[in-house]
Amino acid sequence: QPSIALISRAFKHQLIIPEFQEFTDHIEDIYWKCKDNTNGTVASYIPQLKRMSPNYWGVSICTCDGQRYSIGDTAIPFTIQSCSKPLTYGLALDLLGDKVVHKFVGQEPSGRNFNELILDYNKKPHNPMINAGAILICALLKTTVAPEMTLAEKFDFTMNYFERLAGREDIGFNNAVFLSEREAADRNYALGFYMREHKCFPDNSNFKECMDFYFQCCSLESNCDLVSVIGATLANGGICPLTEEKVLKPESVRDVLSLMHSCGMYDYSGQFAFKVGLPAKSGVSGCLLVVIPNVMGICLWSPPLDHLGNSCRGVQFCEELVSRFNFHRFDNLKHASNKSDP
Amino acid sequence: QPSIALISRAFKHQLIIPEFQEFTDHIEDIYWKCKDNTNGTVASYIPQLKRMSPNYWGVSICTCDGQRYSIGDTAIPFTIQSCSKPLTYGLALDLLGDKVVHKFVGQEPSGRNFNELILDYNKKPHNPMINAGAILICALLKTTVAPEMTLAEKFDFTMNYFERLAGREDIGFNNAVFLSEREAADRNYALGFYMREHKCFPDNSNFKECMDFYFQCCSLESNCDLVSVIGATLANGGICPLTEEKVLKPESVRDVLSLMHSCGMYDYSGQFAFKVGLPAKSGVSGCLLVVIPNVMGICLWSPPLDHLGNSCRGVQFCEELVSRFNFHRFDNLKHASNKSDP
Amino acid sequence: QPSIALISRAFKHQLIIPEFQEFTDHIEDIYWKCKDNTNGTVASYIPQLKRMSPNYWGVSICTCDGQRYSIGDTAIPFTIQSCSKPLTYGLALDLLGDKVVHKFVGQEPSGRNFNELILDYNKKPHNPMINAGAILICALLKTTVAPEMTLAEKFDFTMNYFERLAGREDIGFNNAVFLSEREAADRNYALGFYMREHKCFPDNSNFKECMDFYFQCCSLESNCDLVSVIGATLANGGICPLTEEKVLKPESVRDVLSLMHSCGMYDYSGQFAFKVGLPAKSGVSGCLLVVIPNVMGICLWSPPLDHLGNSCRGVQFCEELVSRFNFHRFDNLKHASNKSDP
Amino acid sequence: QPSIALISRAFKHQLIIPEFQEFTDHIEDIYWKCKDNTNGTVASYIPQLKRMSPNYWGVSICTCDGQRYSIGDTAIPFTIQSCSKPLTYGLALDLLGDKVVHKFVGQEPSGRNFNELILDYNKKPHNPMINAGAILICALLKTTVAPEMTLAEKFDFTMNYFERLAGREDIGFNNAVFLSEREAADRNYALGFYMREHKCFPDNSNFKECMDFYFQCCSLESNCDLVSVIGATLANGGICPLTEEKVLKPESVRDVLSLMHSCGMYDYSGQFAFKVGLPAKSGVSGCLLVVIPNVMGICLWSPPLDHLGNSCRGVQFCEELVSRFNFHRFDNLKHASNKSDP
Repeated sequence: QPSIALISRAFKHQLIIPEFQEFTDHIEDIYWKCKDNTNGTVASYIPQLKRMSPNYWGVSICTCDGQRYSIGDTAIPFTIQSCSKPLTYGLALDLLGDKVVHKFVGQEPSGRNFNELILDYNKKPHNPMINAGAILICALLKTTVAPEMTLAEKFDFTMNYFERLAGREDIGFNNAVFLSEREAADRNYALGFYMREHKCFPDNSNFKECMDFYFQCCSLESNCDLVSVIGATLANGGICPLTEEKVLKPESVRDVLSLMHSCGMYDYSGQFAFKVGLPAKSGVSGCLLVVIPNVMGICLWSPPLDHLGNSCRGVQFCEELVSRFNFHRFDNLKHASNKSDP
Repeated sequence: QPSIALISRAFKHQLIIPEFQEFTDHIEDIYWKCKDNTNGTVASYIPQLKRMSPNYWGVSICTCDGQRYSIGDTAIPFTIQSCSKPLTYGLALDLLGDKVVHKFVGQEPSGRNFNELILDYNKKPHNPMINAGAILICALLKTTVAPEMTLAEKFDFTMNYFERLAGREDIGFNNAVFLSEREAADRNYALGFYMREHKCFPDNSNFKECMDFYFQCCSLESNCDLVSVIGATLANGGICPLTEEKVLKPESVRDVLSLMHSCGMYDYSGQFAFKVGLPAKSGVSGCLLVVIPNVMGICLWSPPLDHLGNSCRGVQFCEELVSRFNFHRFDNLKHASNKSDP
Repeated sequence: QPSIALISRAFKHQLIIPEFQEFTDHIEDIYWKCKDNTNGTVASYIPQLKRMSPNYWGVSICTCDGQRYSIGDTAIPFTIQSCSKPLTYGLALDLLGDKVVHKFVGQEPSGRNFNELILDYNKKPHNPMINAGAILICALLKTTVAPEMTLAEKFDFTMNYFERLAGREDIGFNNAVFLSEREAADRNYALGFYMREHKCFPDNSNFKECMDFYFQCCSLESNCDLVSVIGATLANGGICPLTEEKVLKPESVRDVLSLMHSCGMYDYSGQFAFKVGLPAKSGVSGCLLVVIPNVMGICLWSPPLDHLGNSCRGVQFCEELVSRFNFHRFDNLKHASNKSDP
Repeated sequence: QPSIALISRAFKHQLIIPEFQEFTDHIEDIYWKCKDNTNGTVASYIPQLKRMSPNYWGVSICTCDGQRYSIGDTAIPFTIQSCSKPLTYGLALDLLGDKVVHKFVGQEPSGRNFNELILDYNKKPHNPMINAGAILICALLKTTVAPEMTLAEKFDFTMNYFERLAGREDIGFNNAVFLSEREAADRNYALGFYMREHKCFPDNSNFKECMDFYFQCCSLESNCDLVSVIGATLANGGICPLTEEKVLKPESVRDVLSLMHSCGMYDYSGQFAFKVGLPAKSGVSGCLLVVIPNVMGICLWSPPLDHLGNSCRGVQFCEELVSRFNFHRFDNLKHASNKSDP
């Protein structure tokens, strides 16, 4: 059911990817190439993740004008895990403004292999893409935004926002993952208590509820197809290309993309920014949300992870993609020697 | 003397900044606003820098199709200092390829306030924008590229490359600054010896000559007007918009811009990438080279520096600029609420 | 009620401090000198500590042959806090042997100002004198020693050991302090969870009970007079000079004294070892347990703390003491120019 | 040629080690035991060290009353290398006082595996036992003590002091080692320049001369027999037991022993203080100077080093020694269960 706007643009030959079929032939080609990659191991710290087949591999694309393409296991649900971090960060920016948000959390990479337990020199977590920062973002959403809401109400409110990002499709919740995550969360509790000691939390925070809210956001469940729409909403300045709803302000999206670019791929972030040059966020379930600003959102999903925690097939896909197309942030639009402009 | 290509594009109304006059009115407005900023102190570790008037303030612009604009002290010569780092890095990439270059130097920010003396986990300097990395880049240019050249020949060769970046205009050399830098360089010698201990240098390097070559590159002398052309060459994928000469390969330029984006502003790099979102490199003489990819190069020059070593007026200018125009790397091109697309 | 052994040695003129009266005249003199020191502030993170008068100041001495001297507020109860750390460490050594104990905790200072949250390079806490290490020692006592005991039984067992160290006098327990400590313990919970994440705890540990046991050991209550007897037991190779009971093996005591020497005074440990040269352990209640091996135990107590957490009057007392007597570990016994051998 | 004092004490049965023959039987026994240890590798960064046979193994002892014993390769000359550090430190303390000396260098261990290039939080090297600190001690001796002396005169002056420590025996100088050390000293030049950048050196220091003086002190040449006399002078509070000359003040010796105890064995210092509990200093030539305060000096020499830079046979010898005798600093003199008091 393509939107009227899409049909109209198609008639006027104004689509962002004019030769979409030709482009998706490339995508399919890369898909099969990466399928052969059997590196990496599935996360095993909780049984629900451990059970995932290492063979799952899906790629979904949604352009800023709503053209879509999917191949592979794109309808199988997975928990979005750390891919929720840029989204809760965006919501906090939209509701509280960047001044308030960045009183509590920094805006910079933390340096490779730098122990994430340590706060930055202002006694704040380095950025909202790492666990410490994302916990504080959840605390802000829980405590500072509409503090009168119960945890249940705040969860509904947030899930509704995720659904609007995804074109008003249903987002699920995996309660077994939530319970397991909460159980296995020594590192996150250590971070939480350490930040509480350093007075990082907003006033009146309920520590236990904030932690629970964080684990709940990580346990939201979706699939490749829908997450690519979320990516397209970010690529499109906060307006969902399917519903044309303005979900986020453009300046919130700008900040989200900036930090996905510099901090979204764990300790591989610096390398990824250099080699691939696209804003992205990976999660422990094997999902990888990639944004090509003004062009498209991509979701890649495959459970086997490399030693830094990123999906092996997902990273390979990104590297292939920018070697064929001028999508690297700093590719020159006119003079990139041997790359296509799709 | 505008080029024929420029005239031709102007006739066809295809200029990158169609309303150039209106745009430069904004630039002039920001120029005067920043002029009032009297923060910062002039670098004083060598007498030649210390003597510079804190009142100097110049802004020059050169677009990818060669439109130019200058205001203030744009013809007064200054040494380019650390602004040479992205340029020598680009030359090394072009001549040796990224595989060889990045065997010797990393590609990532080092983390804020991280002591620059320490090498990264592969025992390499973190990136070519910090002193340690730039020293190694100079060692590669001296030792691995055409090793039969004498130091004098290699210096001529490199100066010639800088001149081609600047549209074949003359680049000078300030010998007094070179001698003073070499004298005052405790930190750089410490870095050099530390790296030599860890076998960071290419084989057959002559340590003293490599250090001298590095100090010479920092002592190249130019002015705002010319440096903006260098910026335009980078913005234009390595082809100088004035001479249409292909000085650098597009893929070399992509890597240069990536690292200027993440590492070009000393310990302010992370903040700058977040707030301004443009590749830039600052130097201790107060110069600031800014690149808006596919659009223009900008040189800002004013000697007073903030405590992190960046030109106070230069940084303010950049922040004003992106608040008016959608130049931030992650501004949405269609939906940036209250910004103009010039 | 002096022991027969003491009387007998006194008759034979074999006392460790033959001119005890003359010696205690010096002690009294130093006592009054330090009384004037009004530096420091009383710990305030829990109300029970905050309420303590900053004027309290007591000094008690007990020699290895049982001669005793007290001046000032030496009968007022205080919680021993971190002074429990060397004692639980000694108990663990005695019951489990150093091989088992040091599988779980290191033996070295952590480096000045080094963030205590970080484990050492073997993923163990640096030593048993810092919180992380002491928590593990408590986990060993709770989990590995007689695991069939309930928490209540284990607490009784441990309190009994403290009483034997103190010459079979009653040791108290301050339940209000325990409850407050447990409430205010963000840092300790952060440490605990961080160590649990890194599998630092012995198998089958009950995390909550181990933490509670640690807080209980810190909340044991005693006074200056009794703690000096504990010090004398350590000075005497583990045999209480009052009861002649062998409470600890000499090799356990050796290890306890070694680590008190290098790590007992928080971030001042290195300076203290250099200037004073005596094994000591300070606690946040203002107590300071000092051991002069083969000679005497000293307890100093005064609540105002310096910025590193050590009792101001306590540290001053130690410095005065070693400037008059050849008690510094590395004072030469024959040739220390202007010091007395008491 | 035993001294009259020694003969007199022997007649009065007042010797420190009354049963010397029995004691040296133990020493010989340990000597042969360690002889079998073929671990470790000879230092190879300069040819003069690399050429040393890994079979060399010597042990010499000199007590505070002048009893002496040697076994093995105790007359073969070696350069004392880092064993010069406590001695130049002692000389600086004696001539300038601890206040002046410790304005330039700290008094604490630097923390295990902590990169030695980094200065402590007061921008001083951590202590005089590491290269950075020892370079500054040499700068003080060269620049602040009798600055009118030429480098040659200052070297003679210092060598003379070493000879007085060694009972007025000749100390040599290995010029080939000096020249090689100076050539191979990337790390030390890095340290030197880094400290010069941070204004660590005393005013008016001649950088090159200070570095040369440091390398010269490391290149002094002696043998096991003589170095044990130096150890005995330290054990005896600064008075050489052979000549009865007062070479160092007791308070200087106290500070030297304190820092040998906490920092003398490179990254093994903490472990060594815990397990062996004796002040010691090792050098890259395989020498190990051990002091048992008030009792004796020991020199152990064997070129093969472990991965931390300490002589393998030397460390083993120390561990055997304290397992048989109550020499550990915190062994109880009366109650050490199964150890002898020789």
